[in-house]
Amino acid sequence: MKPNEGRRRVIIEDIQPQVDAGRYPAKRIVGDIVTVHAAIFADGHDHLAARILYKPAADKKWRTAPLTALPNDFWTGTFPVDKIGPWLFTLEAWVDNFDTWTHDLDKRLGAQEAGGQDIPLALRIGATHLDAAASRAKGADSKKLKLAADQLRALADSNLTVYESPITPELTALAAKYPDLAHATKYDAELPLWVDRERARFSAWYELFPRSCSPIEGRHGTFRDVEERLPEIAAMGCDILYMPPIHPIGVAYRKGKNNAVTAEPGDVGSPWAVGGKEGGHTAILPELGTLADFHDLVNSAQMNGLELALDIAFQCAPDHQWVTEHPDWFIIRPDGSIQYAENPPKKYQDIYPLNFESKDWRGLWDALLGVFQFWIDQGVRVFRVDNPHTKALPFWEWCIAEIVKKTPEIIFLAEAFTRPHVMYSLAKAGYTQGYTYFTWRNTAAELRAYFEELTTVPVIDFFRPNVWPNTPDILHEQLQTGGRAMFQLRAVLAATLSANWGIYGPAYELCEGRPAKPSPGKTASEEYLDSEKYQLRHWDRSNPISIAPLLKQLNRIRHENEALQRNERLVFHDCNNAQILAYSKSSADGANTILTIVNLDSFSEQTGFVDLRADALGLKWDSQFEVEDLLSGERYTWNGRRNYVALRPWEAVAHVFRISK
Amino acid sequence: MKPNEGRRRVIIEDIQPQVDAGRYPAKRIVGDIVTVHAAIFADGHDHLAARILYKPAADKKWRTAPLTALPNDFWTGTFPVDKIGPWLFTLEAWVDNFDTWTHDLDKRLGAQEAGGQDIPLALRIGATHLDAAASRAKGADSKKLKLAADQLRALADSNLTVYESPITPELTALAAKYPDLAHATKYDAELPLWVDRERARFSAWYELFPRSCSPIEGRHGTFRDVEERLPEIAAMGCDILYMPPIHPIGVAYRKGKNNAVTAEPGDVGSPWAVGGKEGGHTAILPELGTLADFHDLVNSAQMNGLELALDIAFQCAPDHQWVTEHPDWFIIRPDGSIQYAENPPKKYQDIYPLNFESKDWRGLWDALLGVFQFWIDQGVRVFRVDNPHTKALPFWEWCIAEIVKKTPEIIFLAEAFTRPHVMYSLAKAGYTQGYTYFTWRNTAAELRAYFEELTTVPVIDFFRPNVWPNTPDILHEQLQTGGRAMFQLRAVLAATLSANWGIYGPAYELCEGRPAKPSPGKTASEEYLDSEKYQLRHWDRSNPISIAPLLKQLNRIRHENEALQRNERLVFHDCNNAQILAYSKSSADGANTILTIVNLDSFSEQTGFVDLRADALGLKWDSQFEVEDLLSGERYTWNGRRNYVALRPWEAVAHVFRISK
Repeated sequence: MKPNEGRRRVIIEDIQPQVDAGRYPAKRIVGDIVTVHAAIFADGHDHLAARILYKPAADKKWRTAPLTALPNDFWTGTFPVDKIGPWLFTLEAWVDNFDTWTHDLDKRLGAQEAGGQDIPLALRIGATHLDAAASRAKGADSKKLKLAADQLRALADSNLTVYESPITPELTALAAKYPDLAHATKYDAELPLWVDRERARFSAWYELFPRSCSPIEGRHGTFRDVEERLPEIAAMGCDILYMPPIHPIGVAYRKGKNNAVTAEPGDVGSPWAVGGKEGGHTAILPELGTLADFHDLVNSAQMNGLELALDIAFQCAPDHQWVTEHPDWFIIRPDGSIQYAENPPKKYQDIYPLNFESKDWRGLWDALLGVFQFWIDQGVRVFRVDNPHTKALPFWEWCIAEIVKKTPEIIFLAEAFTRPHVMYSLAKAGYTQGYTYFTWRNTAAELRAYFEELTTVPVIDFFRPNVWPNTPDILHEQLQTGGRAMFQLRAVLAATLSANWGIYGPAYELCEGRPAKPSPGKTASEEYLDSEKYQLRHWDRSNPISIAPLLKQLNRIRHENEALQRNERLVFHDCNNAQILAYSKSSADGANTILTIVNLDSFSEQTGFVDLRADALGLKWDSQFEVEDLLSGERYTWNGRRNYVALRPWEAVAHVFRISK
Repeated sequence: MKPNEGRRRVIIEDIQPQVDAGRYPAKRIVGDIVTVHAAIFADGHDHLAARILYKPAADKKWRTAPLTALPNDFWTGTFPVDKIGPWLFTLEAWVDNFDTWTHDLDKRLGAQEAGGQDIPLALRIGATHLDAAASRAKGADSKKLKLAADQLRALADSNLTVYESPITPELTALAAKYPDLAHATKYDAELPLWVDRERARFSAWYELFPRSCSPIEGRHGTFRDVEERLPEIAAMGCDILYMPPIHPIGVAYRKGKNNAVTAEPGDVGSPWAVGGKEGGHTAILPELGTLADFHDLVNSAQMNGLELALDIAFQCAPDHQWVTEHPDWFIIRPDGSIQYAENPPKKYQDIYPLNFESKDWRGLWDALLGVFQFWIDQGVRVFRVDNPHTKALPFWEWCIAEIVKKTPEIIFLAEAFTRPHVMYSLAKAGYTQGYTYFTWRNTAAELRAYFEELTTVPVIDFFRPNVWPNTPDILHEQLQTGGRAMFQLRAVLAATLSANWGIYGPAYELCEGRPAKPSPGKTASEEYLDSEKYQLRHWDRSNPISIAPLLKQLNRIRHENEALQRNERLVFHDCNNAQILAYSKSSADGANTILTIVNLDSFSEQTGFVDLRADALGLKWDSQFEVEDLLSGERYTWNGRRNYVALRPWEAVAHVFRISK
C-alpha cells in the first residue's frame, strides 16, 4: 500500500539522545544545553535542511532549533531546557530546493568561461523557488522575496556575457526562514527527556544514624541532637543529610547487637524492621522525637544549606499494622502464616517482604505511594530507597511518575546492589540516582572500565551514579586492611570520579575499619563490628585520625570547580605504573580542567610517568603548562604530555590538579 | 495511571536480531537457524522462564521455542525458518514459581542438619504450585501433576527426620509444560524477519554485454550468441548471468565511442539511455532479438544452472515514450524544456531523470512497478538496479514490498556507490544485496576494517555485500597498474571475503586494464578505454593471459566449502607484514574452515608470520594441524599459532587453505 505522501524523501535515523528507542526518557538537568545527533539523508544529491522541534511535554506549541550538517549525513544541533519536568523533542527534515539551486548556480557561474551553462534559464529556475518562498511568507518578508525573484528574472533578461552571483547571505537567510515543508519528514516518534534540578547531578551525601547523635554516650539520640550536628556537616561541604528509617521498630524477632538472633532487653533493633505498635511507614519512632521535631529538623537543615533525605524501606516488621490490616499484601503460606524474608538456610524473621503479586496489588501500590506523599507533605524532597530491586519494576515506573507529575523536584536514590540490568532498569523506571559497584572496583583497570561505562552513551543518558566508599552494610576489605590512607584515597576517587557521592559517617571520617568477622578468609564479611544497624554508637569526632578535613577540602574543590560537577568529559590517562590512576574532567566550555592522580596503594610510595591525552585537556601535545595541586597548594610546571609523578601515601594519596592553560 | 496488569514483573530488553527497533526486517535465509538474544530479568531473585514466539507473518498461530539463561540476565534461543517470505517473532517471559520453589527446596534439604528448615511446610507450598499446574494441564498430564502434588503433601505428613528430594527431572519437565502465564510479559513489538532463498546469500555473478557476444568481430551480438556462451560461463562456476539494459537505446544526444558528445553514424550508444521509437523499459532492442529469443535465453540459462539478471535503469532517453506521454514525470524548466541529467559543468543530455516529487508520483510509482512485473512475467527472478540511490527511498520500500508480496523469491541487487547511510538505507528498504566499497579498499587495514563492519551486527542483519573487483564503470587504478597478479589477487579477495561476488567480463578474466585516461595523474579516470558502454567489443577469450582457470577454481572451492557460502564467522588474523592479509571463515558447525592468506603486493614476494586466532579456528593454541592449499594442492603441517608464509605473485598470489583438525 502506498504511503499517504510518497514525496517525503528524507530519512531520519539514529537520533541521540534516546533510551531504548524512546521507551524511557533521557535525563538532563535544568539549564542544560541538550545536544542532538542524528543521521539525516535522502536519495540523490539535493541539499537538505533540518531542525529540532522541542517543548515541555505539556506545552502545545513546539519550539524550534536548527540542525547543521556534519560529514557523512550526520547532523547536530542543540536546544536549552529551562524548566524541570518532562520534555519532548523530535526532528523534521526536508529537501531545501533554494539551497540546492544556489549550489548549482555557483557551479554554473564558475564554469561560465567554458560556455553552455545557460545561466539565464538557471536564474529563472531560482526565481520560481523565491516565488514559492514569497507565497509562504507574509508582509515585508514576502515582498522582499517577491522582489528578489523579479530581480533574478530581470537579470536573466539582461543577456550579459559574464554573470556574478546575485545571491546575498541576507537573501539566503530570508529564503531559509520560509522553507517548503510540504514534503518534510517528521521523525516517527516524539522522544522524551526528563529534566531534573541541579542537585540530581551534583551532590555530596552524608549518612548518619540519628539515634547515635546524642552527645552523651549510651543515650538514644534525637532529631534535636541531629540539629546540633547540622552546622558541622554543612561545614564539611555536604548537601544532603540522609537518615536510615526513622519509624517505629518492630519488637517481634528483633535482632540484637551484632545481628544476634535474639535481642537483649534494651536493644534498639534495626531501623529497617519497620513498624511497631506506635505506627508504620508514616510514623516516627518516639525516641527520636515528634512530627513537630521532624519539621524543625527539616527547617534547620534548610537553614544550614542541607536537604534531608529519608530512607524508604518497603518491608514490614511483624508488628506493622499492615500485617493485620492487609494480610493479602504478604505471602501467606499453606499453614496460614506469613512468609518472612528467607534465603535458606538464613532466616530474617523480623522482616516480612511485600507481595507484588498480591491480588490487591492496586491497593498495595496506592499505600506505598501514600508513604512517599506523606513525607513529601512534611517537606521531604529527597528519598533514598532501600532495596528497590526487590520490588516490582512496573511499580516503580508508575509510583515515581505519579509523584513527579505533581512534584518534579523530588530526587530518588536507588539503593540497589544487584545485577547490571536490574540496576539500570531502576534508573530507566525513574530513579534519579543509583548506588554503584564502586566499592568493589579497586584496581586501576577496574575503575577505568567501570567509569568509562558509566560516563558514556547509553548509560550516561539514564543512570546517574552516586558513589559511596562505605555504607552501614558495606565495609570493603580494602578499608578493613588498608589503613587511614585507604579511607583517604577512596574518598578522593569517589569525590572526583563522580559528581554525586556520599559517605556513611562518622564511621568513615574516623576510619572505622573493624569487621564483624576478620577478613580475609572464608568467613570474610563486609559487616561492621558493633554495627549501628543494631545498636547505638558514640563517635569521638575529635579523634585526630579523622579525615574530616580532607572531606571538607574535597567538597570545597568540587564546589569551586565546575569540571567536577558533571560526569561528562571524564577522560582517563595512561600511566606506566598500574598502581596509579590518572583522569581528568573538564567543564563544557573547557575553561576548567581538573586532573586527578591517585596512588591506589595505601602503604607504599608509587612513582610513574603519566601520558596525558593532551587533546582532552585542551592542550597541544608539546605545550608547557602550570598545574596547581588543590589539596596541597603546590604548583608545578609540566611539559608536554609525559610527566613524572610520585605519591607517598603517608604524605599525600593523590594530586588534584587544576590546569592553567 | 496504573497498567492493566501490575503483576507483570518481567522486563524484556535488547532483543537481537532487530534492525532499528523493528522498523525494518532482519534478513535470513530459508533453512537458517535464527539465534535470538535478549536481556530478561525481574525484581528480586525469583527464577524466570522465557520462550520465543515465531511464525510466518501470514500464519495465525505462533510456534514456540525455548529460551535458556546465560550469565548476567542474558538469554538465548533458536528457531528455524523453513520458508521464504516475511516472518515475525517476539518473546514471552514469566516468573517460574515451580522452578523457584525447587531451588529453594534444594537449599533447605542441604541445610537439614542445621535444623529449623521446616521442610514439611516447604513441601506443602510446592504442592500448591503443582495443583496450579494441574489445573492448567489436561487429561493424563493433569492427573500426573495432581498425583505429584498429593505425594508432596503425603511426604509432608510423614514427619521424617531426613528428607530426600522428591523432585524428578520428569516432574520438572512436566510442570514446565504448563507454565503460569497469567502475569507473563510479552515483548511490546513483533519483530520482523525477511527470509530469502539461498541465492540471496551465496552467488557468483558474471556480467557481460550481449551485443559484444557475436563470434564475428564487428557484428552486433544477439541473445542467441549469449546462449552459445552459457556453458562456458556455467563451467566457470557462476550462478547468475547479468546483462546491462536490453531495451531500445535513444538516438537523440546519443553518446559516441569513449563517451564522445556526438555519436558517429553506426555508434550503438549506451544501453543505459533507455527508450527509443521501438519502445521503453518493457521493450527489447531489436538487434538483440525478440521477446521469444529472450524466453529461449531464460530457459537455456536455467538448463545450464544459471539465472538471468536484468538491469533496471529508471531513467529515460529523450526518445522514450514516457517523455511525451507523461512529461509530468520529469522536471520541466521555466522555458518548457525537460531537465536532463546535469552536474554542472557536466551535461548528460542523453538522459532524463525521473522526478520523484512529481504531482503524479502515484502514477509514476505504478509504472515503475509495472516494469518489474513485466519482466517477472517473462521469467526473470533477479534484478540489478542501476543507481537506486537517485530514486526516492520510500518508493523502493513500497515497490519491493509489492513485488515480494506476490513473488518472494525475487533478488534485488542495488548498484549504489554512495554515502554509507544511503547504501545501508537501500538494504533496509528491501534490497537483497548491495554493491560495496570493496574496489576502493586496498590495504590490509582498509579491507579488515570494512569487512569487520560488513560482517558484524548491526550491518550483517540487513546488508548483504556483493563484491565486485570491476564493473563497466570502474576500473580501479590498482587494476590499471598492478598487472595480471592484481586481477588474480583481487578475485581471490572478493571470492573468499564475501559469499556474494561478481565480475564484469570478459574484461576481467582477460586482465583488461587500459583506462580512458592515463592514471595516476590529475586526470585519473576509472573509465575503461574503448568502453563497452559505448561500443561493441570483441574479446579473444583464448588469450593465455586469461585468468578464467583461477575464477573457475575459486568458484569450485566456494561450492565445495560451506565456510565460504556465508559471511558470518569471518575472522582476521594478524600478520607482521602489512602487505599480507590473513582471514578465515568457518561453517556454523565448525567442521569446515578456510584460511585465506593473500599477498596484496602484485609485484614482489612478501613473507611474514601469521598469528592465528586459534579459538576462531577451533584449534588449541599449541596444536599441530594440516593445511591444504586448495589452489595449488600443496599440503603443509602447521604448528601452534605462529606460522611462516611466503607468497611470490608470479607463482601464487594467495593460499586458500582448508584446515584439517
